[in-house]
Amino acid sequence: MARIKVGINGYGTIGKRVADAVMLQNDMELVGVSKTRPDFIARMAVSKGIPLYVPEGHEERFEAVGIKVSGTIEDLVSKVDVIVDATPGGIGAQNKPLYEKHNVRAIFQGGEKHDVTGFSFNAYVNYNEAKGRRFVRVVSCNTTGLLRALYVINDLYKIKEAFAVIVRRAADPADDKAGIINTLEPSIPVPSHHGPDVRTVLDVPIETMAIKTPTTLMHIHALHVRTEKTPNREKLIEELSKYRRILLVSKDLGIKSTAKAIELARDLGRKRYDIYELVIWKDSITVKGNDIYFYQAVHQEAIVVPENIDAIRAMFEVADKDDSIEKTDRSLSIGDMSI
Amino acid sequence: MARIKVGINGYGTIGKRVADAVMLQNDMELVGVSKTRPDFIARMAVSKGIPLYVPEGHEERFEAVGIKVSGTIEDLVSKVDVIVDATPGGIGAQNKPLYEKHNVRAIFQGGEKHDVTGFSFNAYVNYNEAKGRRFVRVVSCNTTGLLRALYVINDLYKIKEAFAVIVRRAADPADDKAGIINTLEPSIPVPSHHGPDVRTVLDVPIETMAIKTPTTLMHIHALHVRTEKTPNREKLIEELSKYRRILLVSKDLGIKSTAKAIELARDLGRKRYDIYELVIWKDSITVKGNDIYFYQAVHQEAIVVPENIDAIRAMFEVADKDDSIEKTDRSLSIGDMSI
Repeated sequence: MARIKVGINGYGTIGKRVADAVMLQNDMELVGVSKTRPDFIARMAVSKGIPLYVPEGHEERFEAVGIKVSGTIEDLVSKVDVIVDATPGGIGAQNKPLYEKHNVRAIFQGGEKHDVTGFSFNAYVNYNEAKGRRFVRVVSCNTTGLLRALYVINDLYKIKEAFAVIVRRAADPADDKAGIINTLEPSIPVPSHHGPDVRTVLDVPIETMAIKTPTTLMHIHALHVRTEKTPNREKLIEELSKYRRILLVSKDLGIKSTAKAIELARDLGRKRYDIYELVIWKDSITVKGNDIYFYQAVHQEAIVVPENIDAIRAMFEVADKDDSIEKTDRSLSIGDMSI
Repeated sequence: MARIKVGINGYGTIGKRVADAVMLQNDMELVGVSKTRPDFIARMAVSKGIPLYVPEGHEERFEAVGIKVSGTIEDLVSKVDVIVDATPGGIGAQNKPLYEKHNVRAIFQGGEKHDVTGFSFNAYVNYNEAKGRRFVRVVSCNTTGLLRALYVINDLYKIKEAFAVIVRRAADPADDKAGIINTLEPSIPVPSHHGPDVRTVLDVPIETMAIKTPTTLMHIHALHVRTEKTPNREKLIEELSKYRRILLVSKDLGIKSTAKAIELARDLGRKRYDIYELVIWKDSITVKGNDIYFYQAVHQEAIVVPENIDAIRAMFEVADKDDSIEKTDRSLSIGDMSI
């Protein structure tokens, strides 16, 4: 079977990671990536042998600094089966007509509104519903993290209501424009967008609030979930541990913060210390009657990467849900962090 | 009527603020304060005319650097009607026998366990129950903040259940020992101590979780409160605004973070930029059926100061609840920040 030809529009935080992941799949081919700025990231892409496409009329800016250009973004779109649009939030929607013009499929990120595709994706929750679709939206990092945990809990005990407070990182590690420092900023109005976003994928009643903090590593969520059936703590932990994309850690083993979770990924030699897994503090999981409480952490740069890969396979119907997830996980060493 | 003779044991973050506040009360006299280290804070106390008491045998360490000592800590205890113990958490309990020996009353801070006094205090909630008591514990900053808001809500609508996530500052501004940086640290086990601590004062079902963040200014709480009676948003805001120790702010006026709340206090010329008020974001207050959601911020260094002053008056039964609170508030300009 021919490999699926993939183009990445937007080679930034998410785009470069999805590009790396695509190159690890034996059923996909990375046709090229697009960049709007001739910087070190563009140069590294070319030196790794990745064809680089740029906005029309900008070729000279790249060639001037010795970065080889393979064509325009429209050229890239015309050569692929699917575009992973990893452009900044809101730009994806503007790009959609281009993808339609060339009759290519496209995956958008969580920065776009649900309406752009009418379908939002999480591999665990609705892989099968993505089959055959032309346009799919992979939800944002926080929503992906919430969905993974809520999916498991909902499946076991049926969620009656859920409330999550998202303690957000203010910027990504490489952001050197501006971020808050020594201040906390609540997200107003309430609820934050995360709850409604979860419901575009999984039908559970959830409300969310969010507070921005001066950190760059990961988000942390504090969750309170009330279930219809009475949960059992040991059973819940046992079930959560069956999912490779959920990593149970414990304070007892010294993973008491996001800094330590990242250190684990660094010590494992993960590229860019990426944690694709949702990190749940096992020793925080507390059950009182039908109420479950726990903390989890989300690596905002990485968690959606496997979801993008699975979304491609689902759209082209080249693998069943479990096969795709396993293939993706193996390629990215997801599950190797269990300790 | 003779003034109440007050001694402060522990002239640190809380102690120096309570000392300043005592000096502003016309029914109290600051007899002296204690310090264990001959530093600039000790020198400033003496230069302000505050008699300084030190641990027995340490007099020379202070005199050696030119700081005048008025006696030992036991000397201070023997001269007062009441000690405000503002020593580090856990030390207060060790000091209690000394206060008992000299038959003086004492106020402990939230770093001590409830059992040390068997009675925990918040002026709005249980001023009258403190009357005549020998030992009173003023609850911690976060608990004080939770109590102020929950007291008002409970009074109006009867709280059925409450859940709060406390996004904690990691250190106080003057702390230069060590604090976390660029990391988030969940408080394990769940629940955090705050919920049980609230219940030592106000009988409401509340669960809490907490996450430490690399900031110094204030804590933020994200609250979800479910009430027996159906709340009305406008009525709730109207009632909250009647309490001087609650300051309603809005993002619309630019107070979108803890940094901006502190800037307001600085611009008002508040000493040490202290915010004694609980800060609630008015535009975050959201009512859905019987559920109330909102964010609030707590200035950890200052919020308990008026509570300590009121606790003294309650113990000596020298003023009724409303009179004491009004007197304290006027002396500290509480309420002047309303904008």
